[in-house]
Amino acid sequence: MAAAGSLNVGLIGLGTVGGQVAERLLTWQAQLARRAGIELCLRRVLVRDVKKPRALAVAPELLTADPQELLDDPAIQILVEVAGGDEPMHSYLERAIRSGKHVVTANKVVMAKHGPELLALAAERNVDVYFEAAVGGGIPLISTFRTDLQANRIERVSAVINGTTNYVLGRMASAGLSLGDAVREAQTAGFAEADPTDDIGGFDATYKLAILGSIAYEIKIRPGEIFREGIEGIEPVDFRYARELGYAIKLIAHTQRHPGRVEARVHPAMVPLDHPLAQVEGANNAVFVEGDLVGQVLLVGQGAGGRPTASAVVGDLIDLARSIRRGVQSRPSFSFDDRIGVIPMGEVKTRAYFRIRVDDRTGVLAALGQVFAEEGVSISSLIQKDAWVEEQTAELVVTTHPAPDASLQKARERIGTLSPVHAVSSFLRVF
Amino acid sequence: MAAAGSLNVGLIGLGTVGGQVAERLLTWQAQLARRAGIELCLRRVLVRDVKKPRALAVAPELLTADPQELLDDPAIQILVEVAGGDEPMHSYLERAIRSGKHVVTANKVVMAKHGPELLALAAERNVDVYFEAAVGGGIPLISTFRTDLQANRIERVSAVINGTTNYVLGRMASAGLSLGDAVREAQTAGFAEADPTDDIGGFDATYKLAILGSIAYEIKIRPGEIFREGIEGIEPVDFRYARELGYAIKLIAHTQRHPGRVEARVHPAMVPLDHPLAQVEGANNAVFVEGDLVGQVLLVGQGAGGRPTASAVVGDLIDLARSIRRGVQSRPSFSFDDRIGVIPMGEVKTRAYFRIRVDDRTGVLAALGQVFAEEGVSISSLIQKDAWVEEQTAELVVTTHPAPDASLQKARERIGTLSPVHAVSSFLRVF
Repeated sequence: MAAAGSLNVGLIGLGTVGGQVAERLLTWQAQLARRAGIELCLRRVLVRDVKKPRALAVAPELLTADPQELLDDPAIQILVEVAGGDEPMHSYLERAIRSGKHVVTANKVVMAKHGPELLALAAERNVDVYFEAAVGGGIPLISTFRTDLQANRIERVSAVINGTTNYVLGRMASAGLSLGDAVREAQTAGFAEADPTDDIGGFDATYKLAILGSIAYEIKIRPGEIFREGIEGIEPVDFRYARELGYAIKLIAHTQRHPGRVEARVHPAMVPLDHPLAQVEGANNAVFVEGDLVGQVLLVGQGAGGRPTASAVVGDLIDLARSIRRGVQSRPSFSFDDRIGVIPMGEVKTRAYFRIRVDDRTGVLAALGQVFAEEGVSISSLIQKDAWVEEQTAELVVTTHPAPDASLQKARERIGTLSPVHAVSSFLRVF
Repeated sequence: MAAAGSLNVGLIGLGTVGGQVAERLLTWQAQLARRAGIELCLRRVLVRDVKKPRALAVAPELLTADPQELLDDPAIQILVEVAGGDEPMHSYLERAIRSGKHVVTANKVVMAKHGPELLALAAERNVDVYFEAAVGGGIPLISTFRTDLQANRIERVSAVINGTTNYVLGRMASAGLSLGDAVREAQTAGFAEADPTDDIGGFDATYKLAILGSIAYEIKIRPGEIFREGIEGIEPVDFRYARELGYAIKLIAHTQRHPGRVEARVHPAMVPLDHPLAQVEGANNAVFVEGDLVGQVLLVGQGAGGRPTASAVVGDLIDLARSIRRGVQSRPSFSFDDRIGVIPMGEVKTRAYFRIRVDDRTGVLAALGQVFAEEGVSISSLIQKDAWVEEQTAELVVTTHPAPDASLQKARERIGTLSPVHAVSSFLRVF
């Protein structure tokens, strides 16, 4: 099909992702025009420093450090944002939408925090907001929920959605590294930022789960409503116990439908070795979706990186261009049911693993057992290991049957205060 | 959003899939109307026998055994076909398109054999043809290629795409069953038809690969152009050797891009145990896609069955309804490049596994080695096993380095005629 006319694209960001987006736009013009039915013309690129030397040959006159040259240019119909972070990007996107520009963004923070408002504004201004790249790199997720699984009631979404922590946990498991050493190795390998807090602390996964959950259930899940725990507390010994018990340790993002409410949480978890999420390796992402008709679907791929993310951005751009060419919004408009809220973590039922350092003497088990019983937590398995004879201490590993998280936390707290207990060295939920 | 007006749906088939489609249409009216932006009204259902007792409460006046009551009813805007088989369904769909009806079909045979023509006809008549359900049940595949991965050049697609053979091979591997016993078990479990030829012979996988390959590369791949070999020749002992060598045996559908041509083949293969396709269990399907930007993406789910297939059919129906409501075709039109053909199997390079029954005497290896060398096939590993002392025979297992399939076949044939060789008992390609 011959391309009729052209669409002007403004790009914010020319880093790992932006460089790949620009390159595909500049070197794949004919293919993109054929697939979109219209030419896509890169008109302006916003960068921090126009003078910085770059591997990619972008004509210097396309570069600018002034956001107004994109936001105030009426000839730019589509704003592509791959710079990331909340402000000023949130304001830029809002301003672009207000002035009638369509938006394609890879910004998980903005979409997690302000997605429902931006989508409502876009519907009002009759423009589209695409954000496939905000979650899971090039893995088709947003489109899967918005189109393919529309005939389903989504029951649950469970994901390994942060590549950095998955890489780190994998290295701790396979090479026995400490968290610090594994993080340093991930930084050297390019899988972790200089400041890894966002990943290690589970914040990144929380943003992504907020987006996935909101789209899956058509409700507004805010990052702040999601229970969040990072992987900071995990020690190499926990991987040994996990393996012995038949589990891998993964940072899990999980959301599940309950009557009138949903559960939404991000935390490290013991995952049974035969569960597909236990087998996700390296910096890969995997999303496990259960719908009432489709059953279980698993989607796996590289969840980050310049090229996979550019695949999603440019894919969105093609889809958007097709709809603009036809003069319509091709994407379904989003609606969010405000009546469905998130269940407080204390009420969520889960199994748990406790690793407890105790005095190696009689009566310890009775004391522990009494606390668990009083908190209504039923013990599933108990292992005593690694007695340190000279210190007269031992390590107890307890796994429980499902119990409300509040009861587990209460038991954890009370056990820590028992006189024969030195410390609850580790507490992990079992998935 | 309030539904504006309604769309009338005609349904062909009320079996495993059709029953689920009808049920969702009848019991989920409000949700579907909200998601589609318009009501979907089941107006007529074509069945073989209107008197047959059914679990589902479809109003008797909706049922008809006369195709004309659907095809000639101008009030029916959308024809949903889930009956399967080439004729008369191909003619029904063609007739529906000619008279301006949109089509949603789960029919892999029709789409594999006549897909490009039906799509061209639909474009001409300004209607849509949706067929997500034709491949991989509810796993989002067609939409993934047509939208999400549009920014990519697809390099290869490898799939376990036939649940019946995967179940059968799994039972042969885990329980040591013969092919016949495993097929009978699959029939009892509802995973195989009374006549299993279509699945066991690889025909079903060939139809699906024709569709996936055509969409992935935007070329016309006909089922007859795809090299096809079924799982009939595999014996329980092959699974033992496979495990020892580090492989699983799977029926693999594979297509790969080469300069100006593509390779496309369906056959049983030795798959390395750490490859994701080796881990696909039971009747599941898994599709492994590699794009130049996105890298490797894996999509897994139930590839057949009433509910997963209905998920895809009704998902298509919602997407189609959205686009009809807006008065546009929302799907990109398909284009197929006629210049790209399929590489003859003889030219395809692959590794292979030979299991050879030989006389247990000196000189055998030299004779075999000479044949392989003369055919330009280089040996990767060789195991001698299971000498039957009383018969004075032994079993040799040879794996090769990659060689053109024609050379492998020539070697296989020549080895079979060597005097110390009783038989080439098994030949499998290594993936």
